[in-house]
Amino acid sequence: MNFESDNAAGIAPAILDAIVRANDGFARSYGEDAVTAHLKAHLAQLFEHEVGVYLVATGTAANALALAQIAPPWGAVLCHEECHLAVDECGAPEFFGAGLKLIGLPGEGGKIAAPTLAAALQRGPWGGPHHVTAAVVSLTQATEFGTIYRPEEIRELAAIAHAHGAKVHVDGARFANALARLNRSAAAVSWQCGVDILSLGATKGGAMGAEAVIVFDPTLTLGLDERRKRAGHLISKHRFVAAQLEAYLADDLWLELARAANRMADRLAAALADAGLTVVWPVEANEIFVVLPRRLDQRLRAAGARYFAWTTKNLPTRACVADDEVLVRLVASFATRSADVDKLVAVIRAG
Amino acid sequence: MNFESDNAAGIAPAILDAIVRANDGFARSYGEDAVTAHLKAHLAQLFEHEVGVYLVATGTAANALALAQIAPPWGAVLCHEECHLAVDECGAPEFFGAGLKLIGLPGEGGKIAAPTLAAALQRGPWGGPHHVTAAVVSLTQATEFGTIYRPEEIRELAAIAHAHGAKVHVDGARFANALARLNRSAAAVSWQCGVDILSLGATKGGAMGAEAVIVFDPTLTLGLDERRKRAGHLISKHRFVAAQLEAYLADDLWLELARAANRMADRLAAALADAGLTVVWPVEANEIFVVLPRRLDQRLRAAGARYFAWTTKNLPTRACVADDEVLVRLVASFATRSADVDKLVAVIRAG
Amino acid sequence: MNFESDNAAGIAPAILDAIVRANDGFARSYGEDAVTAHLKAHLAQLFEHEVGVYLVATGTAANALALAQIAPPWGAVLCHEECHLAVDECGAPEFFGAGLKLIGLPGEGGKIAAPTLAAALQRGPWGGPHHVTAAVVSLTQATEFGTIYRPEEIRELAAIAHAHGAKVHVDGARFANALARLNRSAAAVSWQCGVDILSLGATKGGAMGAEAVIVFDPTLTLGLDERRKRAGHLISKHRFVAAQLEAYLADDLWLELARAANRMADRLAAALADAGLTVVWPVEANEIFVVLPRRLDQRLRAAGARYFAWTTKNLPTRACVADDEVLVRLVASFATRSADVDKLVAVIRAG
Amino acid sequence: MNFESDNAAGIAPAILDAIVRANDGFARSYGEDAVTAHLKAHLAQLFEHEVGVYLVATGTAANALALAQIAPPWGAVLCHEECHLAVDECGAPEFFGAGLKLIGLPGEGGKIAAPTLAAALQRGPWGGPHHVTAAVVSLTQATEFGTIYRPEEIRELAAIAHAHGAKVHVDGARFANALARLNRSAAAVSWQCGVDILSLGATKGGAMGAEAVIVFDPTLTLGLDERRKRAGHLISKHRFVAAQLEAYLADDLWLELARAANRMADRLAAALADAGLTVVWPVEANEIFVVLPRRLDQRLRAAGARYFAWTTKNLPTRACVADDEVLVRLVASFATRSADVDKLVAVIRAG
Repeated sequence: MNFESDNAAGIAPAILDAIVRANDGFARSYGEDAVTAHLKAHLAQLFEHEVGVYLVATGTAANALALAQIAPPWGAVLCHEECHLAVDECGAPEFFGAGLKLIGLPGEGGKIAAPTLAAALQRGPWGGPHHVTAAVVSLTQATEFGTIYRPEEIRELAAIAHAHGAKVHVDGARFANALARLNRSAAAVSWQCGVDILSLGATKGGAMGAEAVIVFDPTLTLGLDERRKRAGHLISKHRFVAAQLEAYLADDLWLELARAANRMADRLAAALADAGLTVVWPVEANEIFVVLPRRLDQRLRAAGARYFAWTTKNLPTRACVADDEVLVRLVASFATRSADVDKLVAVIRAG
Repeated sequence: MNFESDNAAGIAPAILDAIVRANDGFARSYGEDAVTAHLKAHLAQLFEHEVGVYLVATGTAANALALAQIAPPWGAVLCHEECHLAVDECGAPEFFGAGLKLIGLPGEGGKIAAPTLAAALQRGPWGGPHHVTAAVVSLTQATEFGTIYRPEEIRELAAIAHAHGAKVHVDGARFANALARLNRSAAAVSWQCGVDILSLGATKGGAMGAEAVIVFDPTLTLGLDERRKRAGHLISKHRFVAAQLEAYLADDLWLELARAANRMADRLAAALADAGLTVVWPVEANEIFVVLPRRLDQRLRAAGARYFAWTTKNLPTRACVADDEVLVRLVASFATRSADVDKLVAVIRAG
Repeated sequence: MNFESDNAAGIAPAILDAIVRANDGFARSYGEDAVTAHLKAHLAQLFEHEVGVYLVATGTAANALALAQIAPPWGAVLCHEECHLAVDECGAPEFFGAGLKLIGLPGEGGKIAAPTLAAALQRGPWGGPHHVTAAVVSLTQATEFGTIYRPEEIRELAAIAHAHGAKVHVDGARFANALARLNRSAAAVSWQCGVDILSLGATKGGAMGAEAVIVFDPTLTLGLDERRKRAGHLISKHRFVAAQLEAYLADDLWLELARAANRMADRLAAALADAGLTVVWPVEANEIFVVLPRRLDQRLRAAGARYFAWTTKNLPTRACVADDEVLVRLVASFATRSADVDKLVAVIRAG
Repeated sequence: MNFESDNAAGIAPAILDAIVRANDGFARSYGEDAVTAHLKAHLAQLFEHEVGVYLVATGTAANALALAQIAPPWGAVLCHEECHLAVDECGAPEFFGAGLKLIGLPGEGGKIAAPTLAAALQRGPWGGPHHVTAAVVSLTQATEFGTIYRPEEIRELAAIAHAHGAKVHVDGARFANALARLNRSAAAVSWQCGVDILSLGATKGGAMGAEAVIVFDPTLTLGLDERRKRAGHLISKHRFVAAQLEAYLADDLWLELARAANRMADRLAAALADAGLTVVWPVEANEIFVVLPRRLDQRLRAAGARYFAWTTKNLPTRACVADDEVLVRLVASFATRSADVDKLVAVIRAG
């Protein structure tokens, strides 16, 4: 009953097989191998667009490199105030970006609403020499709270950003979970609605450690090779990272894995609601935030359930957490078994 | 009728005289001169405490050096969300601090309330490796909105900060204005209520360009000499910066200049209130924030009055700004003449 | 006939097996798993010393993190002017170290001689505020040119460094190759001769991508967790990196793999010398630098041999490279087959 | 008898007068004042070219800002290995440049010879992702050792730099001393021979603290305003810095002051040579490097002479420093009196 995080899961079998298969003889290091070349072509085809592709081993690296690439040191990145890169990366964007500034915006369910963004960009103050410049709007898809942006929402946010001269970044650590739910093409949820640069995650989805910075505007790639290298993120035996992503994307495996995770989250959310518990935000990807009575929380943990308690400044008004309650996060992954979900539900019902 | 800023004023005569007097023959450069030595001794006496003293030419430099000195790159500086170092220094703290993070707190009148600070430090999340560490609480004295912290307020905030392992910095660009109003010793408003490091400004008070980082804990000075030098802030003909500060502090000149500025602000504020205008926050230093009907604003500017419009996210509820109104900032300095104040008031009354 | 680099080789079978074995169920992410805990204990035992252990995926990351950890931004790292971190990491040490400075020292065979180091530390100028401070001496073991430092050489260099207040870092991307040749314990070649911090590589030795920063002085670990995280180098599915290192070190596999590589290098070097070619530096690890007539170089490449041309400012006087010659580097790895060596030699002899 | 440095001198009377004159009423701060506007126009006229002008208070700031502006973080700045920005600025270029790399080149008399530069740019290795990119060639005019580059030398060096895609920076802390000696126009010694960006110093020449970054290519100014502000180098009471430079340049004062300093250096150098002492490099600006017997050194210091001992790795072969000798630097400034020179010479002759 491990619902701690999607990165508590291991490697999806097909991806592990790909690593094993890639271990055949010698290959040029640092990305000049055939697997990498093939992957790049595949990504261009998948996104129906010319793309710059830069692989790294962690999502934090992908995000921080992407932001440093499109914001100057005196740039501001507007993002949800509780998103991963603002809260959980220990200042990586600021480090990679030579001291750029994150501006956190509020928003229910981890989403930035268009009027919130418009007001922030309107109000300022922005612009040198005294103030930082609004350089990037970063969206998380799926969000930190398991909700997703619809293409038309992204399009509206991107239009606002671009109108103010800012670029649009998407943190797609759980991009597949969103894509699977939206049932749209990768292009339709990225550059076609205005996304300039995407951190495409595979690790949470089932890889061992493989993420890609995808750049849709080729003029934005200048220097990114050097930036990655001097950050220590150019993997020497590069074929093994490329092989993971290649396997992840092949034959829609990424969507299949994401659908499995989403389905387990749905099943769990339905059971929790049935049991009269408050599921705080719509479960649109693979994360569930639910308010538990402390006694139930203790029972679940005693029964072996693993998950994290959570806090937020953006709780919807209908979902208050009383003193004898606790807000917790349950994450499903490709590896979550329905038996585990059912066992958790059984413990709840036994209460 | 220039009320744009205290740095629109020139140099106070006694300080200019000191520059002229210091121009006598040769002197060791880079701070190894007699004037600097004398100033250091003077500051120790004035603050009744052993102090590390580091002169620079701008307040932004003083703040950024002080913060970088007491926060690691993965440290967070909690400060008012609209204070100078968060908004008006184009990311200087982040640059000097190798990507440290500012966490803006709300608060009426530019002041952080103790419960707000306590809640932020309580809530977190703080601490590595995933989250930045709460390293510094930075207070502005007098605040960006012309209010001041009482010693007991600083003591309470400092106690909360220290209890969480954070240091206390004060941005004292207008320290003299606060001190003059509080009528307390420099020690009583700094280290005696828990301040660890102080940016002591003289420029806004009447110097040409002279600020001092004052370090109360000698263990915190390690590396600050190098930090200043590599930031380009070690002035070569150092005696001329030291001479400014020496003259500023001699014979209580700084308090005298600050009182003159505060007095002009009081006089103006009283007249504005008399005229039925809403002065938004208590005028405790040398700044006045007042809501003007747009027609009056236009008349004042046409009559030659100079000042800046302002925006804030922290307006008190009683002080709304209607569509046909504008919030403006009026700043008095040592050089503000009562004639200018009276002229401004006359234009208002003529309406 | 691939002699391009040891990272052109794949993954050693036992290490790949360990990755597969680690893929069993769920595990805490970010290093809080059982495999990582076990590895840490193993490393302490192996080095016969309390150690701080920080895993990352690349050698550049390990080096840059280690240096940033023991040098302040105004610190200088004295290293061989042609070592990897000075030349081949695109400024990673400067980036991680917030602008620290590398001071390159000359030295035959990629080694810094004790008198060279002593003279550099003596001469300076060192020390603030005007000059950077000599903070670290970094040695590469085995060196960039395939030579190795004897323990007594390291001891002498470390003593000189420590006498000047500098710490000692070792870039051990090929530490096993040196250790295997020296036939000494890991402790004897590290902390016992004065090494403070070690970048211990496994990737070149046969891992997929696994390196460890090993800190021998526990007081030097403060903040390293945060530093790694904000550099994007805290691997989420951490068990798989730990498993690689664990397998690498288990049952002396690392020494066995290194010996295999060294042996192939020896075999090749002997054959080259036999053929009358100039092997530039003693072959003490797994790299060979040899001067080839351009015609031979063309013949080898035509026959399918892969290797890189090289340049150096530190060529020994006896080994000049004429206009019709080229200096090349041949690297053997655990995966190099004697058949490939023999084939290369056969092409040479056929000339 | 103070020959320590040109910044041991005070403020030239005409410049001090200008500061006093500028202290008239209120003025817009941060460079939006009339004095600054006038100075900018004057500089464009003086350099016979459209120029971007950015004033700061120190030469270190001017250099570091200029370099950070034209080199990416993964850029290399090739400069003389003993120039000010490589040795005496405590890593400021690395700090401002987010970890850029300085590559020191040898050269007699503080000058880089064209073949040395060509060879360095030829040899490399340069270029990403593994190696830094050669981005800037920085020349010091007059050099650290009191010599000067002729326009045709600069032209040749700049042509080499540009051919490799690098920009040309000149550290002109003593630009006037060079200009006065060359008797050429400011344009002829800067952009007309290929200089892209110039740190134009006035402090050493007689100002209190005033330097200008002069950008000859307007496309290179993007972001420099923000860069200066976030480095804390945008002076608030800006008119007083502008007034210094304006007075410095007016009526050829800068050349007059420089000629006075150069003349004193010539007079002293002639006397030293007459006395049989070895003046190490041609005295072309205002600095003299001379080998003194230790006994003479002691006598001079006892007589009240002040100057610094010096070390160099680039001593010409004819000028060895024996064990009982010391190399010293004597600097003349606008304030050096012939009486002081004569007194020094008298002490020497009395030996």
